[in-house]
Amino acid sequence: MTKYVYDFHEGNKDMADLLGGKGANLAEMTNMGLPVPPGFTITTEACRHYLRTGEPPPELADEVAGHLHAMERHMGRKLGQVDAPLLVSVRSGARFSMPGMMETVLNIGITDESVHGLAAWTGDNRLAWDSYRRLVQMFGQTVLGIDAAAFVDALADAKAAKGVTGDLELDVHDMAHLTRTFQAIVREHTGRDFPQDPHEQLDMAIRAVFDSWHTERARVYRRAEHIPDDLGTAVNVCAMVFGNLGMDSGTGVAFTRDPATGRPGEYGDYLADAQGEDVVAGIRNTLPLQELAHLHPLPYVELIDIMHTLEEHYRDLCDIEFTIERGKLWMLQTRVGKRTAAAAFRIADALVGEGLIDQDEALRRVSGAQLTQLMFPRFAADTQLPRIATGVAASPGAAVGRAVFDSATAVEWANRGEDVILVRSETNPDDLDGLIHSRGVLTSRGGKTSHAAVVARGLGRTCVCGADELDIDLAARRFVGRGGVVVTEGDVVSIDGTSGVVYAGAVPVVPSPIVEYFEGRLAADADDLVRAVDRIVRHADGRRRLGVMANADTPADAVRARQFGAAGIGLCRTEHMFLGERRELVERLILADTDADREAALAELLPLQRADFVGILTAMDGLPVTIRLLDPPLHEFLPDRTELATRVAAASQPDEGDLRLLRAVERLHEQNPMLGLRGVRLGLAVPGLYDMQVRAIAEAAAACVNVGVQPHAEIMIPLVGDVHELTIVAERAERIVAQVAAETGVNLEFPIGTMIELPRAALTAGRIAERAEFFSFGTNDLTQTTWGMSRDDVEAAFFPVYIDQGIFAVSPFETIDADGVGRLMAIAVAEGRARRPDLVIGVCGEHGGDPASIRFCHDIGLDYVSCSPFRVPVARLEAGRAAIGGAGSDSR
Amino acid sequence: MTKYVYDFHEGNKDMADLLGGKGANLAEMTNMGLPVPPGFTITTEACRHYLRTGEPPPELADEVAGHLHAMERHMGRKLGQVDAPLLVSVRSGARFSMPGMMETVLNIGITDESVHGLAAWTGDNRLAWDSYRRLVQMFGQTVLGIDAAAFVDALADAKAAKGVTGDLELDVHDMAHLTRTFQAIVREHTGRDFPQDPHEQLDMAIRAVFDSWHTERARVYRRAEHIPDDLGTAVNVCAMVFGNLGMDSGTGVAFTRDPATGRPGEYGDYLADAQGEDVVAGIRNTLPLQELAHLHPLPYVELIDIMHTLEEHYRDLCDIEFTIERGKLWMLQTRVGKRTAAAAFRIADALVGEGLIDQDEALRRVSGAQLTQLMFPRFAADTQLPRIATGVAASPGAAVGRAVFDSATAVEWANRGEDVILVRSETNPDDLDGLIHSRGVLTSRGGKTSHAAVVARGLGRTCVCGADELDIDLAARRFVGRGGVVVTEGDVVSIDGTSGVVYAGAVPVVPSPIVEYFEGRLAADADDLVRAVDRIVRHADGRRRLGVMANADTPADAVRARQFGAAGIGLCRTEHMFLGERRELVERLILADTDADREAALAELLPLQRADFVGILTAMDGLPVTIRLLDPPLHEFLPDRTELATRVAAASQPDEGDLRLLRAVERLHEQNPMLGLRGVRLGLAVPGLYDMQVRAIAEAAAACVNVGVQPHAEIMIPLVGDVHELTIVAERAERIVAQVAAETGVNLEFPIGTMIELPRAALTAGRIAERAEFFSFGTNDLTQTTWGMSRDDVEAAFFPVYIDQGIFAVSPFETIDADGVGRLMAIAVAEGRARRPDLVIGVCGEHGGDPASIRFCHDIGLDYVSCSPFRVPVARLEAGRAAIGGAGSDSR
Repeated sequence: MTKYVYDFHEGNKDMADLLGGKGANLAEMTNMGLPVPPGFTITTEACRHYLRTGEPPPELADEVAGHLHAMERHMGRKLGQVDAPLLVSVRSGARFSMPGMMETVLNIGITDESVHGLAAWTGDNRLAWDSYRRLVQMFGQTVLGIDAAAFVDALADAKAAKGVTGDLELDVHDMAHLTRTFQAIVREHTGRDFPQDPHEQLDMAIRAVFDSWHTERARVYRRAEHIPDDLGTAVNVCAMVFGNLGMDSGTGVAFTRDPATGRPGEYGDYLADAQGEDVVAGIRNTLPLQELAHLHPLPYVELIDIMHTLEEHYRDLCDIEFTIERGKLWMLQTRVGKRTAAAAFRIADALVGEGLIDQDEALRRVSGAQLTQLMFPRFAADTQLPRIATGVAASPGAAVGRAVFDSATAVEWANRGEDVILVRSETNPDDLDGLIHSRGVLTSRGGKTSHAAVVARGLGRTCVCGADELDIDLAARRFVGRGGVVVTEGDVVSIDGTSGVVYAGAVPVVPSPIVEYFEGRLAADADDLVRAVDRIVRHADGRRRLGVMANADTPADAVRARQFGAAGIGLCRTEHMFLGERRELVERLILADTDADREAALAELLPLQRADFVGILTAMDGLPVTIRLLDPPLHEFLPDRTELATRVAAASQPDEGDLRLLRAVERLHEQNPMLGLRGVRLGLAVPGLYDMQVRAIAEAAAACVNVGVQPHAEIMIPLVGDVHELTIVAERAERIVAQVAAETGVNLEFPIGTMIELPRAALTAGRIAERAEFFSFGTNDLTQTTWGMSRDDVEAAFFPVYIDQGIFAVSPFETIDADGVGRLMAIAVAEGRARRPDLVIGVCGEHGGDPASIRFCHDIGLDYVSCSPFRVPVARLEAGRAAIGGAGSDSR
Repeated sequence: MTKYVYDFHEGNKDMADLLGGKGANLAEMTNMGLPVPPGFTITTEACRHYLRTGEPPPELADEVAGHLHAMERHMGRKLGQVDAPLLVSVRSGARFSMPGMMETVLNIGITDESVHGLAAWTGDNRLAWDSYRRLVQMFGQTVLGIDAAAFVDALADAKAAKGVTGDLELDVHDMAHLTRTFQAIVREHTGRDFPQDPHEQLDMAIRAVFDSWHTERARVYRRAEHIPDDLGTAVNVCAMVFGNLGMDSGTGVAFTRDPATGRPGEYGDYLADAQGEDVVAGIRNTLPLQELAHLHPLPYVELIDIMHTLEEHYRDLCDIEFTIERGKLWMLQTRVGKRTAAAAFRIADALVGEGLIDQDEALRRVSGAQLTQLMFPRFAADTQLPRIATGVAASPGAAVGRAVFDSATAVEWANRGEDVILVRSETNPDDLDGLIHSRGVLTSRGGKTSHAAVVARGLGRTCVCGADELDIDLAARRFVGRGGVVVTEGDVVSIDGTSGVVYAGAVPVVPSPIVEYFEGRLAADADDLVRAVDRIVRHADGRRRLGVMANADTPADAVRARQFGAAGIGLCRTEHMFLGERRELVERLILADTDADREAALAELLPLQRADFVGILTAMDGLPVTIRLLDPPLHEFLPDRTELATRVAAASQPDEGDLRLLRAVERLHEQNPMLGLRGVRLGLAVPGLYDMQVRAIAEAAAACVNVGVQPHAEIMIPLVGDVHELTIVAERAERIVAQVAAETGVNLEFPIGTMIELPRAALTAGRIAERAEFFSFGTNDLTQTTWGMSRDDVEAAFFPVYIDQGIFAVSPFETIDADGVGRLMAIAVAEGRARRPDLVIGVCGEHGGDPASIRFCHDIGLDYVSCSPFRVPVARLEAGRAAIGGAGSDSR
C-alpha cells in the first residue's frame, strides 16, 4: 500500500521528489538530531492523486490522523484542546520553489473555544487573540480565496477608529473585536462560518495547498521553467512554536557564511518577541545575529554549533530559519543558501581548501552566468550618493548618464555626445531608437520580462525596471525618488543593473578585477576572488572537451581574445572592413556600370583587405583564424532608402549623385534583406568579389610567412544551402590560392568550410560535408529561419508577450532552442560526420557565449564554441562544467 | 569476365542502362528482324572504366576488333579496304539524352588511299571526296576539338573563290582540294596529320565520345537534371549505309502518328540523295513521307509495315530514322517519339481504344504539365496575320497588347487601362515593375532560364524569349521582324508562349476547350481531345488516393473550384477580405489609441467578415472550407513607407492624417516583414483580432444552418512554431465558439488545425499534433525559411544564375525541394501521425498544383493537396498518376 505521509524522522534530504525540498530538509535535520518541532509531510504523490481525481487518496485522512496523534503524544497537547491547544503550521513544499503557490497558514487549531486555552497556556491574552485574528485573516485569504483587501481595510479601519498607526498599539480587546470582524468577512464572502473544528481547518488547508498547484501564476511559471505540470507539491504540517512569547523568545534567519561576499563567519538577523514573517517584513529593526550571544548565550552557542554541523553535512552554505521559544532553540527550516556571484566563487574555492568538496564539485557550484556578472564594471562600493530607488536588476552593468524622458531626446543628446539614461514609466516598440542610443534604461513599471528588460538585454544595455518608488512626471520632465529626491531632465543618475539600485549623481565606476586579471593587469593571487576564479577556470580548462575560440574582426579584438584564453578566431567577419572611409569604394563597386569600373573598385579594395588580414593573422600568429567571406546584402553599404527618397523629394534641385544613389538603392532594395541577395549568393552573383577576398587572404598569408609569422587562415563561406553553391565557390577559391602560391613561391593551403545557418544546410549536411572541411553553426541566422522570426523585428514587439504567456522560457536568440534549432544541429553533426569523420564542427553565433547553449554544444559533440572575447572565460568555465556533468548550482 | 561490347543482336530495349537508349533500341530492332545495318555497342561500363582510370579497359581493344571482324564478314568489306572500304559511324548514346555530348562522327574509315576505293565501289567520285572532307571536318571538330569556324571559313572561302553559294555547286575537284585544306587545318591545330589508319580513327572517335561525357555543358546539364555524374555513355559503332548514292537513295525521318495532333496516320519527311543530318538541316525541301509510295513503292510498303510493327511492339508513338540505299531500306534509329500535349492525350486515349494499352498506362502517358498547356487560351489556328519571329516558348499563354519598350512606359500605359507587351533585348531586375504590369514579355536574347523567362513564369505572364530575328532599335522605339515587318511602340503584337511564335497585330484568342468542358460549357464528347481528357482525368479520379481541394477566397472562386472538381476549400485566406473599402476600417484598427477605439473598429468589421463567410460556406454547401485566420503583417494594410515619407517631405504643409499614418507606419515598420509580426503572432499580440474572426466564422455557420445550408468550416492558424502558440489561440477560439453556440442555440464545432510552414513547426510536429486536428503545409513559407530565401527578392536577382550553374534544377518555389523542404515535411507527417493517427494532412502552398510536387505529396502520404481552382484538374490527374506509379511520359 502506498504511504502518503512521512513523519519528519522517516525522511531524508534525498527524498525531495516525494517530500518536496522543505520537507526533505526538515526530515534530514530531524534525523541529524537537531531540535526540529515534531511534524510530518504529506507526499507529492498524495497531491498528484488529488490533482488527478479531485479528491485526496482515501487512505490519507487516516494517515494524517495517525501522524497527528503521534505529534500530539510527543507535545503532550492536542489540536483544539481547550486548555492548552496544540497549534500547527501548514506549508507547501514542492520539488522546486515556485512563485504563486500557497505559502503558509500558521496557527491552525485556534477556535472560539481554544483561543481561551491558548491565552491560558501562554499566559498572554493579547497574543492569543492576535494569533486568532491572524489565522482568520491568513485562512480567509489563502484557503478561502477572499481578497486580501477586505482584511487589510478592516484592520486599517480599526486603527483609524482608535487613532493609532501601528498594529502593536491595538490591545487585546481590539484584537478580539477584529477577529469577529474578520469572521464576519469570511461569512459574508463564503456564506458560511469560519470553521470551528480544528481538524476541518487542517483538512481545508491541506486541500488549499494542493489546489494552489494550479494557480495561473504557478502554471505560467512552470511553463516558463519547463517544470512538468504533474509533479504536484508536498504539504508540511508542523507543530507551532512561538517566538512571540516575550523577550525570552524570538525568531531569526541566518546563513552559515556571508551570502553577499562568501567570506567565512555566520551571518544573520534576529528579532525578539516576534513570529513568522516578522523578521523579513521589517516591522522592527532586527539585531545582528552576533547580538544573540549576549541576549541568549546558550541558544546562541547551540545555534552556531548547529550551523557548523549543517555546513559540514551539506558541504555548502546553508541558510536557516529558527525560533527561540522561552529560551529553547527550534530549527524551522534549512536549505542550501542563495548567494551572489562573488560569494559563489569564494565559497566553492574555500570549501575545496577546507577539504569538504573536490575541484570538480567546486566547478559545479559556480556558473557562467555568475562569472559574467563578475566581469561587468561595478559602482564603487563606498559611494555616499543617495539611493533613490531599488528596482528589478534586469540587465547587468553600471550605467551613468543624464536622465532623459523620451526617445527623441535620448537620440538627440546621444548624437551630440552625451551619455544618457532613458527614464520611462514603461517602454514600447517606439522607444527602440532611444534604447539604442542610451547607456541604460530605468522604468517604474514592469519586471524581468517587460519590454524594456528584454530589449535592453538584447542590446547589451544596462536596465533597472519596475522601480516603483519613482514618481515620474513626464509633463514636468522630472521624477521624484526615495526621500523626495527630485531628478530633472539633464540631471545625472547612476543605475546598477546587477543590484537594481538607482543613485542620484554620478557614482564612480570601477573596472572588474576579474577582467583586469584576464588582461594581465592583476596577478592571479591579487585577492581571494581573483584567486578563486583563476583556480576554478583553470580546472575547467583541464576538464573541458570543447575548444573555445573568439569572434574577432580586428587585431585589437584578436589580442584581447588571446588574453582571455581563446584558442583561435572562430569567426572573423569581413563586412566591418568595408565601412568607414572604404564605404566610398564599396559604393563605387555597387554603382559600377561596366566590368572595368567594377574591377577597378575591387583592385583598390584588394590591398586594403590584404592589410586587414596581415594584421589579424599576425596578432594570432600560430593560431587558427577562420575568415568569413562577405555576408551582408550590398544595399547595407548604401544610404537608407526612405531617408534618401525623402531628401531627394524635399530638395528643390535634387543632387545628381543622390539621384544616382537612389536608383541603385531602388534596384537593390529588398523586401526581406535577411532572405535576400547575401552570403554565398552574393559571391555567386557579383563577379570578382569573393575572388578579391580570397586573393587578399592568400597574399596576406604569403606575406606573413615571409616575415616569419605562422598564419593559419581558414576560409568560411556564409549562407550555403546546397552543396553545389559551396562546390562552385570553393573550386574558384582553390584556383586563386594556387595562383597566389605560384606567384609568391609560398606553399599555401587553406581549409575551406561553411557556415551551417540555414535549415536546408543542416538537412543536407551529409552532402555539404563532401566538400566542406569544417562546419560552423551560425545559430543567429539558423534561429531566425527555423522560427521564421527576425530578431530585430520581433524581439521588441512580442517577446515580452511570449515570455509572459510561457511560450518562450527564454528567448531562442539567447539560449539555443534545443527542440527546433538544436535538432537541426544534431542532424547536421551526425550526418556531416558520417560523411567525413574528421569534420571539425563549431558554433559561432552569439549562443557560443551562453552557458546553457555551451552545455548543449558539448552534449551534441561539437569541437568548439566561438564567442565574443569578453565571453571567452565564461565559455571556458561552462565547457568544463558541461564535461564533468552533474547538476551544479545553475540548475533548479 | 566483364563483357564490354554487345553486338546489336545481343541486346534489347530494356538494356538502356548498359547500352544507352540508342543502342538498346537498335538492338531491339535487330532482334525484331528489322533491317538494321550491322553494328555493335560499347557499354557504359567501358566508359565508366575510362572515366575512372583515364584508359579504356585493357580487354576493350580486342573485343572491338572481334566485333568489327564480325561486321566486316557480314558486309563482305573491311575497314580501310582499298578497293571497297567499309565505313562506320560512331555515335554516343547515354541512358538519358544529353545536350553537350558528342553526337556523331560519320564516314570513319576513309583515308587518302581508301577514298579512291570508295569512289570505285560507289561509282561516285564526288560522293567519295565529299564524304572524306566531311569526315575530316567532323573528326577535326568533335574528336580533335578544333574550332568549327576554321572549317566553316575554309568552306566559305572555297565557295567565294568559285563564286558560288551552295555546297552542291562544288565539284569533285573542289571537294578534293577542300579535303586537303581541311587536313592542313588539322595539322596546323594539332601538330600532326589527320590519321591515315582507319582503326586509329575509330579508336580516337571512341575515346572522344567517352571524353565528351565531361564537357562543361554536359556536366551542368546533369547537375540541373540530377543525373548522376558517373553513369557514363555507351558508344554505337554501325556500318555506314548511303542515302546519297543518287535518286534511288535517300534518307528520312518519320513518326508512326502525327506528333502535333496525335491523330492516326504515318507522318514524316523524306529527302532523296541525301545523308545524315541533311533532312533536318533544311538544305533542300523535303517530301512528305507519302510521296515515297510513288518514288519507291516497295521500300515504302516495307517502311509502313515496319512502323506498324514498331508501334505495336512499343505500344506507343515511335519516331524513326531510315535510309534507302539504292532501293534497299535500312532502319537507323527508333525511339518513343516526343509529342505535343494534345497529341499525348489523343494518342493515349486512342491506344486504349485499340487495345494496345490499358487505362492505367494511358494515364502514365500524359502529364499534368501537358494538361496545363491545354488549359491556356490559344490563338485562333487560322490567323492570317504575319508571323514576325519565333523564339523560345518560355511561359505559356496567348498574350495580345501594344508593344512598349521600357518598364516605365509599361506601367504608365497599363495604369491607364491598356494591355501591353514589354519588348526588350533582355530584362533585368529593374524591369520587375514593368513585367508585373504587362500581359507578356518578348525578348530577343536569352533562353528558358533567362531573367525574363524565370520572372514571367513566376508571375504567370506569357513569355517568348530569345526571338533573335527581332532587330530592336530602342532609340527609335521600334523593332524590325521577319520579312522586314516594322513594329513601332504602340502597335499591337501577339505572342504565343506555348509555341514561341510572334505575330504582328491582334490574333483572336480562343478559350481552351478543356476549360470550357470543366466549366460545363462543352460536353465531354464535344471532340476527341475533350473526350480523351475527360476519360483520362476520370480514370485518375478513380485511382488517386490524394484528395484535391482548392485555394479560394471568394464565393466566385469557390463556385469555380467546385466546377473543376475540388472536394472542398483547403485554404480560404482572410487577408483579401480586409482590402478595398474595408482598408479604412483596418487603418482605424491599427491607429486605435485606446482599447475602446480598437474594439469599435473590430465591431464594425465583424458583420462584414460574417457576410464573407456566409457567402463562401453557402457556395461550398456540404463541403469543407478551411479558413485561415489573418496572416500578413498589419503594415501591409498601410501605405508604403517610402512613398508616404516622400509625400510628407515634399508637402509644404504636411497633411495631419498623413503625419499620423506615417507615425503608425514607422512604428510598425519591419526590416524583414516575412519574419516579423504576422500569423499567429498577430493573433497573440493584437487583442481581439482573432476573436473577431472566430466569432464571424461561428456566427456565419450558425446563420447557414438556420437556412438549411450545411457549413463545414475548419479554423486554421498560420505560422505556428510552437505548440503553446496554438494551444493559447485554440483555447480562446473554442471559448468563443461555445459562446456563439449558446447565443444562437445552434450546435457548433470546428476542427482547429495549423499551417506547418516553419521549419520549427515541422521539427516539433509531434507536439503540435497534441493540439492540432489537422496540418496544412504552407510550402511557400516553408521553402522561404528552409532556404532562407525570399521568393520576391531573389527570384529575379539570382535564380537565372542558380539555374545556369546547375544549383537549382528547377526553382524550389515551383517544385518542392525534396531533400530540404521535403525532408521536413516527411518528419512532420511521421511524427504528427505518430502522436495523432487520424491527423488529416494536406498542402496548400502553390506547390499543390505542381505535378512533381503532387507526386511527392502522394509519396509521403499526405491526405490532400489544395491548389488554385485552375490547377484542380491538373492535380486530379497527377494524383492519379502518382497512385498508379510507374515512370510515365513525364519522366526522363
